[in-house]
Amino acid sequence: MELIGDNDGIETWQEVNLLYNAALHQMETKMEILNEEFQHVHQYNPIEHIKARIKTPESIVKKLKRNGLDSTIENMVNHVNDIAGIRIICSFTSDIYRIAEMINHQQDIQVLKVKDYITYPKASGYKSYHMIVTVPVYLSDRKVDTKVEIQIRTVAMDFWASLEHKINYKFEGDVPTHISQELIDCAKMVSDLDDKMLQLNDEIMDLGRK
Amino acid sequence: MELIGDNDGIETWQEVNLLYNAALHQMETKMEILNEEFQHVHQYNPIEHIKARIKTPESIVKKLKRNGLDSTIENMVNHVNDIAGIRIICSFTSDIYRIAEMINHQQDIQVLKVKDYITYPKASGYKSYHMIVTVPVYLSDRKVDTKVEIQIRTVAMDFWASLEHKINYKFEGDVPTHISQELIDCAKMVSDLDDKMLQLNDEIMDLGRK
Amino acid sequence: MELIGDNDGIETWQEVNLLYNAALHQMETKMEILNEEFQHVHQYNPIEHIKARIKTPESIVKKLKRNGLDSTIENMVNHVNDIAGIRIICSFTSDIYRIAEMINHQQDIQVLKVKDYITYPKASGYKSYHMIVTVPVYLSDRKVDTKVEIQIRTVAMDFWASLEHKINYKFEGDVPTHISQELIDCAKMVSDLDDKMLQLNDEIMDLGRK
Amino acid sequence: MELIGDNDGIETWQEVNLLYNAALHQMETKMEILNEEFQHVHQYNPIEHIKARIKTPESIVKKLKRNGLDSTIENMVNHVNDIAGIRIICSFTSDIYRIAEMINHQQDIQVLKVKDYITYPKASGYKSYHMIVTVPVYLSDRKVDTKVEIQIRTVAMDFWASLEHKINYKFEGDVPTHISQELIDCAKMVSDLDDKMLQLNDEIMDLGRK
Repeated sequence: MELIGDNDGIETWQEVNLLYNAALHQMETKMEILNEEFQHVHQYNPIEHIKARIKTPESIVKKLKRNGLDSTIENMVNHVNDIAGIRIICSFTSDIYRIAEMINHQQDIQVLKVKDYITYPKASGYKSYHMIVTVPVYLSDRKVDTKVEIQIRTVAMDFWASLEHKINYKFEGDVPTHISQELIDCAKMVSDLDDKMLQLNDEIMDLGRK
Repeated sequence: MELIGDNDGIETWQEVNLLYNAALHQMETKMEILNEEFQHVHQYNPIEHIKARIKTPESIVKKLKRNGLDSTIENMVNHVNDIAGIRIICSFTSDIYRIAEMINHQQDIQVLKVKDYITYPKASGYKSYHMIVTVPVYLSDRKVDTKVEIQIRTVAMDFWASLEHKINYKFEGDVPTHISQELIDCAKMVSDLDDKMLQLNDEIMDLGRK
Repeated sequence: MELIGDNDGIETWQEVNLLYNAALHQMETKMEILNEEFQHVHQYNPIEHIKARIKTPESIVKKLKRNGLDSTIENMVNHVNDIAGIRIICSFTSDIYRIAEMINHQQDIQVLKVKDYITYPKASGYKSYHMIVTVPVYLSDRKVDTKVEIQIRTVAMDFWASLEHKINYKFEGDVPTHISQELIDCAKMVSDLDDKMLQLNDEIMDLGRK
Repeated sequence: MELIGDNDGIETWQEVNLLYNAALHQMETKMEILNEEFQHVHQYNPIEHIKARIKTPESIVKKLKRNGLDSTIENMVNHVNDIAGIRIICSFTSDIYRIAEMINHQQDIQVLKVKDYITYPKASGYKSYHMIVTVPVYLSDRKVDTKVEIQIRTVAMDFWASLEHKINYKFEGDVPTHISQELIDCAKMVSDLDDKMLQLNDEIMDLGRK
């Protein structure tokens, strides 16, 4: 296996772009295959939909600067974990852990880091399950294990996160206290709704089994 | 314009399928164009995503039977309004009316019927904005105005509706009272969340304008 | 109907881009619907595949300059006919005319100009059927009949045209005489192959009918 | 690695379908990544387009019967090499070998069999480069190396092959001699055209280098 943490012969922004796009494409294919298999076995799709995005060069440079690092290709590849990002949206909180487990079991995927903001939400109210993984990208002459950030969340959490993102963008991080407080209230409502819907779903699944 | 309500030379199930698939395809293209325009003017996508489906022959026959009608192509075309169905999912309740208005203003679309289950939810708690419209399908030798059912709802309403659908399917319409009651409770939580999120969104939009 | 030849309230490049992209999207949907219908009636797809492209701002400005016109939005909309371009690739020469006829018969399409480089090839050997049409784009508040250039050709003609394009690009129009001559020879081989394949196809269709 | 040649826990047609669809999906993703890389390095796309198909159960059963084998899942998986088929269409004959080489170099791909009908065309005139490979499909609990048949050919060869397929289908293998002869003549024209176009392309590439 290629070493993670050197730049693997990637020398230009175009090559970074190529490699991380390939990693996203490969990761999406993986998730679609797992979703199909799950659907076949359990008559049920855990994944509602998937969004993929490449971080813009501007955002990457900003992140490096914030961490006191020069804007070199090597620093990008080694120190920015979310150049390639994939977001997996599902219906129920329980699906989140099911999907994380499926990813964990993939033999060719290496999980580098996990942050469980479902069990331990951020102070802002933010909930999501984050993983940094490497996925192998097979180029014409070599395999490059490439980092992808995966975020897994419910539709309700995703709705909340879009609004939070809009608010942070608008106030450039300097959000008025009453707005932050209202966001926390909303996050509570999202959690309650997710809990209630999951409980109802479990109830009818149990009834079905009897 | 072709008369709505005769079968327009459609004689076989294959032709029904062809025509209504074309209507769905045309309707999706329309909505994508409107979404792009809206995005350009308002820097904002009202449409989160779109799902399209053709009713199965089995469901169509079932619906005709329920209404005491023979399973002829003519009866399908004249009496089943949701052979082609499109579902438009948006973030905020206010988007629902914005999208409905855009559809209303399309010169080549004819709105046949509207049911506003947003302002007047069903007893079950179901919320959605329904429209039956005709969209022109240009075949090689004629134009056929073809019926499409449009459902517009928020992501939270859509999540609720999926669970309700699963429950109805499981109990074949004969849902235990306590389950129905819990569904109503969930619908209330969905409404409260949608209200709160919309209010917060309006608030930050207003702040931005000052 | 909107007048063709004024700029229809289109004022910025972004709006040009939006409108012509919508026109391409609408035109592709139309062609896919016609292809499906044709397939149903004749058990045969006349269209192999479709490519769509928007002319770059640079190419548009270049074309205006070549014609002694200022780079205004109005001049773009009125004097550049191929801002939106669609290429339809088919198997047999006879399909070209079939497809052109289907487009001609569309009630909402207006054919502005036709150039039949199939019957009358260019001196270079270039063969293709060109149409300038308008397709209605339904914006939120009005309909804009928008120009699209359609090129229809066989796979063999398309192969030849790619090579010619590469050559013209390489030599910036100043192609060495022996290369031009070889291109003409190739065009002859393309024509002979297309004729032979069509003749063989017609032959077996006739055998089938007996 | 899983053993090739046992049925890897695949027990139903649905599972066969699932697995081979996943293999096709994975193989397409691989080829798209390689095409992007090639485009970046050589400013040129070797792949024109890709078609993928799953063999119908009927065709699989027919093939087994022809080989005197029972229609079991195990026989399908072990003895039918083209359940999953991918066709890669390129512009020039030289691209065919370039693509084959890229596939050969993929570390996770195993090439089981190669038939070079480019250098050694069939008596019918048929030209194509065939490979039987295995591609790893990562299911939730295991990796299954799954067979895929790859056919690589030029656009002109592909056009010819479609017509030949139509003819074989029409006459159910019992093609009249004069039709077979005309097909051979066409194949000769296809070869001559491909040779001429490649020669012209090489010539201009050389001119560019001086």
